[in-house]
Amino acid sequence: MSILAVGSIAFDTITTPSGHVDDVLGGSATYFALAASHFTQVRIVAVVGDDFGAEHEKVLLDRGVDTRGIQHKKGKTFRWGGKYLENLNEAKTDYTELNVFERFQPEIPAEYLDSLFLFLGNIHPSLQAAVRLEMERVRLTAGDTMNYWINNTLKELTETLKLVNILLINDAEAKMLAHERSLPRAARKVLAMGPQALVTKHGEYGATIFFREGAFGIGSHPFRAPALPIEEVKDPTGAGDSFAGGFMGYLASQGQLNREVLKRALFYGGVLGSFAVEAFGTERLQKLSRQEIDARFQLFRELTHLE
Amino acid sequence: MSILAVGSIAFDTITTPSGHVDDVLGGSATYFALAASHFTQVRIVAVVGDDFGAEHEKVLLDRGVDTRGIQHKKGKTFRWGGKYLENLNEAKTDYTELNVFERFQPEIPAEYLDSLFLFLGNIHPSLQAAVRLEMERVRLTAGDTMNYWINNTLKELTETLKLVNILLINDAEAKMLAHERSLPRAARKVLAMGPQALVTKHGEYGATIFFREGAFGIGSHPFRAPALPIEEVKDPTGAGDSFAGGFMGYLASQGQLNREVLKRALFYGGVLGSFAVEAFGTERLQKLSRQEIDARFQLFRELTHLE
Repeated sequence: MSILAVGSIAFDTITTPSGHVDDVLGGSATYFALAASHFTQVRIVAVVGDDFGAEHEKVLLDRGVDTRGIQHKKGKTFRWGGKYLENLNEAKTDYTELNVFERFQPEIPAEYLDSLFLFLGNIHPSLQAAVRLEMERVRLTAGDTMNYWINNTLKELTETLKLVNILLINDAEAKMLAHERSLPRAARKVLAMGPQALVTKHGEYGATIFFREGAFGIGSHPFRAPALPIEEVKDPTGAGDSFAGGFMGYLASQGQLNREVLKRALFYGGVLGSFAVEAFGTERLQKLSRQEIDARFQLFRELTHLE
Repeated sequence: MSILAVGSIAFDTITTPSGHVDDVLGGSATYFALAASHFTQVRIVAVVGDDFGAEHEKVLLDRGVDTRGIQHKKGKTFRWGGKYLENLNEAKTDYTELNVFERFQPEIPAEYLDSLFLFLGNIHPSLQAAVRLEMERVRLTAGDTMNYWINNTLKELTETLKLVNILLINDAEAKMLAHERSLPRAARKVLAMGPQALVTKHGEYGATIFFREGAFGIGSHPFRAPALPIEEVKDPTGAGDSFAGGFMGYLASQGQLNREVLKRALFYGGVLGSFAVEAFGTERLQKLSRQEIDARFQLFRELTHLE
């Protein structure tokens, strides 16, 4: 089943202990779409400038991504520059040039309106809500957000959370949103704001999914999928969006939505995140095969399951 | 089978966001022994001062711990004071008074010499080595160390590592010891120094065991046991030693040492660590039942295993 992803397309300039790249294709919609494309059809809505050429679009088209929702505007594409120093979990931003992304107004092509799955990338919560309300046939909505929106647009974000079935954020964001130090307590508070499930991402240590009592199955036990210890993290950029892409891609490829499917999706999220960081930019996600994905899924399982 | 544990007994003054306690019984040997005592007989070698009374010894005796190896010296017991602020993974030390621990020379009672399992707590690596060499019948030795010994006694530590079968340290220590940023690479380097297995602890995110090729079984795949998201971490002090106690206690209670047993031991380590932090000092470990331990083991399994 098709997923519609709304988010950013960007050109990133990245420095990590493993090297440096200039203006490589990135952005939340790009990473999400490439990751999810290994499971199902993905359609994206995003905005780019004059500097976004056919060679960039080809990266998405080669993976079968529907790019009809990309809006071409006069000006430059969103640009971000940053460094990862010793701590690969944290980027130090050198610059953020919003450019055409500053006035991004998502427009959903008519051909996209039958999408059953929706991913709301990290954009203004009011835009997220508007997209959700327009997509009347959507069965499952997942969304991302960040500290900036939590701090500056909490009221709008609170409204959006009522429209989101699964929120995917990192531990620190969950704690900030709930004003709670304990992750399980923070999770309960966030779930009370609307979502039926909350995925908190722990970077190199995997992710935990918390369920609202009775959502997607019985009880309220969380589930934790650990990540694989990675030989070399070359570039952490996009790991979270790739996680979301693997997670949602797997969900959309399944006939039903129950806890067991959501647990497997959490593993697939970790798998796609782990591939994304093995090379700079989207390089690894482009070259990936479904066979490699399933082999790593099996490896993740072996490395974490008792007999 | 009996475990001999050599380490510290201390009185800790601890402040966390949940409260404050003064001079509560602590130390690596104490936490280790209380945790391991739920699985098997534990004998300890440690040193205390005049301020260590019958009421303190009773805490250990009540759990069946053999305390004949506790040396009573003139002076005060090792004391530590510290705070955990917002980040519960990191203590800020207020003071460290080594007191009688400064001249600690482990003396092994003759009755302990038939111990088959040995845990070398975080003491000077030369003392660790001396104990290991004296324990001729030991089948498995596990050891801990810390950044202080890595920085100041690397030569002695390198010798000790040749005598240790399983090293249990945290991620940062493993990376420091190996001069490596990548955990899997650091693990390979550490394993090349002597140990057959390396357990790296990730705090609230669990632990990973890396095996030297062919050690305890076939291949060299690591195994990761995630920890449970804890409702409220009241006091992280002793979590690592409690982890080691659960890990070694389970190992010593089993007839054989193979990868499957080691994987289960990693889960039991996480279980005991998770109990330890639920109350200040050793309180929770004292009151624990084997039934509670096994129930949490099952819970850990449920929360991490796909169908």
